[in-house]
Amino acid sequence: MQLADLVNRTSEWLKSTGPNSDIVISSRIRLARNLDKVPFPHWANKKQSENVLLSVEEAVAKTAELKNTTTFRLMDLDSIDKQFLIERHMMSLELAQKSDHKAVVIDEEETIAIMINEEDHIRMQVMQSGLNLFEAWNIINKIDSALSKELSFAFLADLGYLTACPTNAGTGMRGSVMLHLPALVMTNQINRVLAAIAKLSFNTRGLYGEGTQAHGNFFQVSNQVSLGHSEEEIIENINGLIRQIVEQENQARQALLSENRLLLEDRVNRSFALLKSAHIISSQETIDLLSMVRLGCDLEMIKNIGRKTLNELFILIQPAHLQKIENKKLSSNERDFKRAELIRKKLAI
Amino acid sequence: MQLADLVNRTSEWLKSTGPNSDIVISSRIRLARNLDKVPFPHWANKKQSENVLLSVEEAVAKTAELKNTTTFRLMDLDSIDKQFLIERHMMSLELAQKSDHKAVVIDEEETIAIMINEEDHIRMQVMQSGLNLFEAWNIINKIDSALSKELSFAFLADLGYLTACPTNAGTGMRGSVMLHLPALVMTNQINRVLAAIAKLSFNTRGLYGEGTQAHGNFFQVSNQVSLGHSEEEIIENINGLIRQIVEQENQARQALLSENRLLLEDRVNRSFALLKSAHIISSQETIDLLSMVRLGCDLEMIKNIGRKTLNELFILIQPAHLQKIENKKLSSNERDFKRAELIRKKLAI
Repeated sequence: MQLADLVNRTSEWLKSTGPNSDIVISSRIRLARNLDKVPFPHWANKKQSENVLLSVEEAVAKTAELKNTTTFRLMDLDSIDKQFLIERHMMSLELAQKSDHKAVVIDEEETIAIMINEEDHIRMQVMQSGLNLFEAWNIINKIDSALSKELSFAFLADLGYLTACPTNAGTGMRGSVMLHLPALVMTNQINRVLAAIAKLSFNTRGLYGEGTQAHGNFFQVSNQVSLGHSEEEIIENINGLIRQIVEQENQARQALLSENRLLLEDRVNRSFALLKSAHIISSQETIDLLSMVRLGCDLEMIKNIGRKTLNELFILIQPAHLQKIENKKLSSNERDFKRAELIRKKLAI
Repeated sequence: MQLADLVNRTSEWLKSTGPNSDIVISSRIRLARNLDKVPFPHWANKKQSENVLLSVEEAVAKTAELKNTTTFRLMDLDSIDKQFLIERHMMSLELAQKSDHKAVVIDEEETIAIMINEEDHIRMQVMQSGLNLFEAWNIINKIDSALSKELSFAFLADLGYLTACPTNAGTGMRGSVMLHLPALVMTNQINRVLAAIAKLSFNTRGLYGEGTQAHGNFFQVSNQVSLGHSEEEIIENINGLIRQIVEQENQARQALLSENRLLLEDRVNRSFALLKSAHIISSQETIDLLSMVRLGCDLEMIKNIGRKTLNELFILIQPAHLQKIENKKLSSNERDFKRAELIRKKLAI
């Protein structure tokens, strides 16, 4: 698989096929693993890091569950390629910052991504459409078991898996869910909901993971604690919380429909019209407008466009994607123009 | 003619058929006349005012040039009717404020309007499409001559016509032109132009005449001085000024096209899309968006809509018009909804 092949492909987890995929964009499970008796990446020397890279690559190659994957060494990627993979949620900003001895392993459907020598030796993730953490867990659990036959993971009987940052120790697992909550935002209930999430020891983040602000109507919710509970318990807890948030978003949508239908129709239709007509548009405005159109789609105010197309657009309108599509470097102004052109093309009915 | 007949009719001067009607919406000449030996309306008693009303009505009825006119007594009009005529530029806010002994005479094409007992006993106007003050003058001059055979006007050989306010004395004439100057506004040159107009002793006003602010991209320019020059000289002066402003607007449009075409296309297309999609819209937003669409139409960025339709919309989207169309009183919220509905219907292609 070439990196360029991905441009015209929709990640499986974006296809809006999973449970509750109107409100829950995607579910993600990631596991942090480290090789036994090797310093964590930030403390490892070049030789040690190179050995980790080679060992993990070798283990991946031997694992049946990973036979459809491709390994990209960061040294072989230019800055647009790296940004491109970050935009697709296949790797982190942190992995991209230094390229030495680093790699990312991706399968064709973009369900699986394994980062080598990020904060931990191994950070693997499995993504699923909608609210489907258990399915993601089933898949990643098999990959983890298979890899553990090839590699010796740092593990203590009383503590569990060891990780560079203590907050990840234990299961080494983080479950996270990307939510679209426009009605809770529009009805000014979102702060109450976010406060409740924080009180229950869950984290809320923005569209692109750690360190990014929740902006617009998208919120990523994940567990803070990975120690002292089994993976299944942690997932069950997240699931319970997410089901409540989904219920609240649905209630807020019904309230908007019964009390402010006209206002909602106005915003939805204006947003759709702007996306179909703009000749210059920023990422931020696009995300805000797409959010309203997605809501209109969920509420059947807009009928001739699918959620899959809208989900795709959230990815495609990003800077590195626009540059991969055009196959050249674009200035910010050029991107705003190309972005508008792309959106008009994708939404032409 | 019934007042309600006007709702579905486009005033002749709005049809965008006159010279320079891309930039000059309309030209208007008005004459102020008073009956000899009768106090001006503000000082006249009821009997005197009633006599003025009857005399002028009688003179109108005898005048061949006014045979297609209808006289509406203000006492017979409700507040929506009055607002409706103001919105159509057929009468002033001042005439509407008190109804006693007042009337307005209108022809079917809405080219001619004669207010009785406004600030002066007679305020007559003739409107024309585009930059066409001389044609308006020719028409109103004939009406004035015909009326002067039936009525004795207050006139002094050395001063000219006497008027309630000295600024109107002499010719009693005001020529005014409604301009659409979006490019001068967008290129931040409008203040320089307005300052030059003021320096040359011309007035600038908003869409609805005296006391209204110039808002958005519409400006009404008229002569300040009506004394000491012949009507033809005054008109020639206004014409000269307007031709310069038109030239500057055209240059600003060309500059926008060559330097900011993308930005312009973006604004024009977004504006058109919003008008075609909004479900709730205020007058102010409508005027701003229509202005951009009109510019797009002039520059052939928008090809499937005519200036006549856009000109009509400026009139139809006003509060009293919406209420006449719906034939009932509407709240502000209801109007914002009905306005959006009307615009979508008129712009449906």
